[in-house]
Amino acid sequence: MPRIVSLALLPGDGIGPEVVTEAVRVLHAAAPADTTFETTEYPFGATHYLATGSILTDEDITTLRTHDAILLGAVGGDPRDPRLSGGIIERGMLLKLRFALDHYVNLRPTVLLPGVASPLAAPGEIDFVVVREGTEGPYVGNGGSIRVGTPHEIANEVSINTAHGVDRLVRFAFETAMKRRKKLTLVHKTNVLTYAGGLWQRTVDRIALEFGEVSVDYLHVDAATIFLVTNPGRFDVVVTDNLFGDILTDLAGAISGGIGLAASGNINPEGAFPSMFEPVHGSAPDIAGQQKADPTAAILSVAMLFDFLGFGDAAARVQAAVTADVASRTSEPRSTASIGDAIVAQLAAQ
Amino acid sequence: MPRIVSLALLPGDGIGPEVVTEAVRVLHAAAPADTTFETTEYPFGATHYLATGSILTDEDITTLRTHDAILLGAVGGDPRDPRLSGGIIERGMLLKLRFALDHYVNLRPTVLLPGVASPLAAPGEIDFVVVREGTEGPYVGNGGSIRVGTPHEIANEVSINTAHGVDRLVRFAFETAMKRRKKLTLVHKTNVLTYAGGLWQRTVDRIALEFGEVSVDYLHVDAATIFLVTNPGRFDVVVTDNLFGDILTDLAGAISGGIGLAASGNINPEGAFPSMFEPVHGSAPDIAGQQKADPTAAILSVAMLFDFLGFGDAAARVQAAVTADVASRTSEPRSTASIGDAIVAQLAAQ
Ligand SMILES: CC(C)[C@H](C(=O)O)[C@@H](O)C(=O)O
Ligand SMILES: CC(C)[C@H](C(=O)O)[C@@H](O)C(=O)O
Repeated sequence: MPRIVSLALLPGDGIGPEVVTEAVRVLHAAAPADTTFETTEYPFGATHYLATGSILTDEDITTLRTHDAILLGAVGGDPRDPRLSGGIIERGMLLKLRFALDHYVNLRPTVLLPGVASPLAAPGEIDFVVVREGTEGPYVGNGGSIRVGTPHEIANEVSINTAHGVDRLVRFAFETAMKRRKKLTLVHKTNVLTYAGGLWQRTVDRIALEFGEVSVDYLHVDAATIFLVTNPGRFDVVVTDNLFGDILTDLAGAISGGIGLAASGNINPEGAFPSMFEPVHGSAPDIAGQQKADPTAAILSVAMLFDFLGFGDAAARVQAAVTADVASRTSEPRSTASIGDAIVAQLAAQ
Repeated sequence: MPRIVSLALLPGDGIGPEVVTEAVRVLHAAAPADTTFETTEYPFGATHYLATGSILTDEDITTLRTHDAILLGAVGGDPRDPRLSGGIIERGMLLKLRFALDHYVNLRPTVLLPGVASPLAAPGEIDFVVVREGTEGPYVGNGGSIRVGTPHEIANEVSINTAHGVDRLVRFAFETAMKRRKKLTLVHKTNVLTYAGGLWQRTVDRIALEFGEVSVDYLHVDAATIFLVTNPGRFDVVVTDNLFGDILTDLAGAISGGIGLAASGNINPEGAFPSMFEPVHGSAPDIAGQQKADPTAAILSVAMLFDFLGFGDAAARVQAAVTADVASRTSEPRSTASIGDAIVAQLAAQ
């Protein structure tokens, strides 16, 4: 039975449009024959904001909700532009979408592919996934300042953590572990953040009883960064809060060959709202429009999108095509489009 | 004129007493001839708490305040002991001291010494110092929970940041930069934590005007972890908040040869209260009492202590003795005491 999948494309700013172009080519090349991916492009991002004064309206969100999934390139303009300071685009668009579409799972796999150079001298096998919370923690925007700009200014940030939010995330992480090497590591800072840490630790302890096959351990976030550079092979599934997950996944991207290869999914597992897939990297305005960006992270985000929508075969094909391309890379620089070409060619050769 | 320095020793738990023993030997061996270091030992730590039910009383703090400086080994008992859960010792002792003695500068130098192996394939020159805030941020213990243990639990953590606290720290960081390569990097997450981030960014921008020779840049904390493994040579002075500093300095320790070599100072620059020097590593109860711990971080903490108290020559001598010892290390394991012996011998040979 032919199927139609409706996809929203949010190329965004900087290198975003270039990498999304290649990702969409791979999407169509790898899609199952009986399925049509209909794409609708939206202009949201810093450029759009500077031109129109609008970042993302409630109507925009209503429209995006009608799609089956979202593919995002990257957002963010010139970091020195005062009109964009304070993360106005990141918060007004990226975080707003994560919250409005209840993307409580921020899924970030880290794999050191054969042939990829790691900055680590002896990386060993790296193959883990960070299950980062996406809708709570210090990201909720719950803070405030008084006496701003005076010597008596006080600025607070509140991290909000709920049993509902932690429970559903931890459950997802255990289910993920069951499909992998059955090892789960909670990362937090329970010795300092005792209220939030207590909730996270108790939730993991309780749900662990339902997943007797999964071995569970705990690391303070500071210690976790040490293991990421001394023994990344120890990790299988890492479950952690929004901010710690942000930090750990950039480091994870770095040790596995750079965030040019790191894909991510902002997922609502129940499918109440469309999930959103995006490279972990930013918009890199300094190299935008020069065909210098590596579209691999965006292409791997397509593999995650396929996987989430139930196209496991297509996901595996994209993954295999990227793995083959990456293994054959030389130090010769390639344009964004020619990397796309090469991966499409790998698909055709399968 | 002969001088007497009164030092409080807090060996603590696990490997703490072993490494402090060696550090004190080095202290006496390197002290200027006209200065006597009088040491008083205090038993505080997990073992003391389990034996007496007391962690650190107000009287204890009053007593500690009478000393010129404090040398701490490591605190913390068996992590699986439920009587010690939730970081009760870390918060009741280590953090309590940092707050009660207004240790607003948590100073953590990172140097890759010649001969030390880094987990990075191409570490290059690593020589930077993290100036971490020590008395504010998410460490203030300002949080709470409701409906604990129910499906409706909510746990909050509040990060408190004040103009007073950020200003004095940033000023110290700029002064530190002036004595070094004159480069300062603010690390925060201003695009998400906009209230706190705004205060930090504005404070750095304002104080930068007084230090025209210092070049200033900014990194989000996630990006900072990437640079720590791809280009640590870019850092000179990093100024950052309490939690980000905690995370970055463990990673910094790891890339520069392990936290077995990382020293730190909990400093009250004005000298209103004694400053406290300690290795960054923990109490490692699993190897305690076996002479397996490396006392180098504790010995380098003595160098920092000397430096802070105005004994620059003694500090340089300890630093040189450690550098010489480290350069001559082989893969042959050495006992804690024999590393102390070797460093004392290096001092004698200078
Ligand atoms: C752009 C920023 C708000 C975002 C985050 O902190 O989540 C990014 O760093 C990421 O990891 O997706
Ligand atoms: C033990 C813990 C409370 C402490 C901290 O988080 O500050 C430690 O990790 C450190 O860095 O000194």
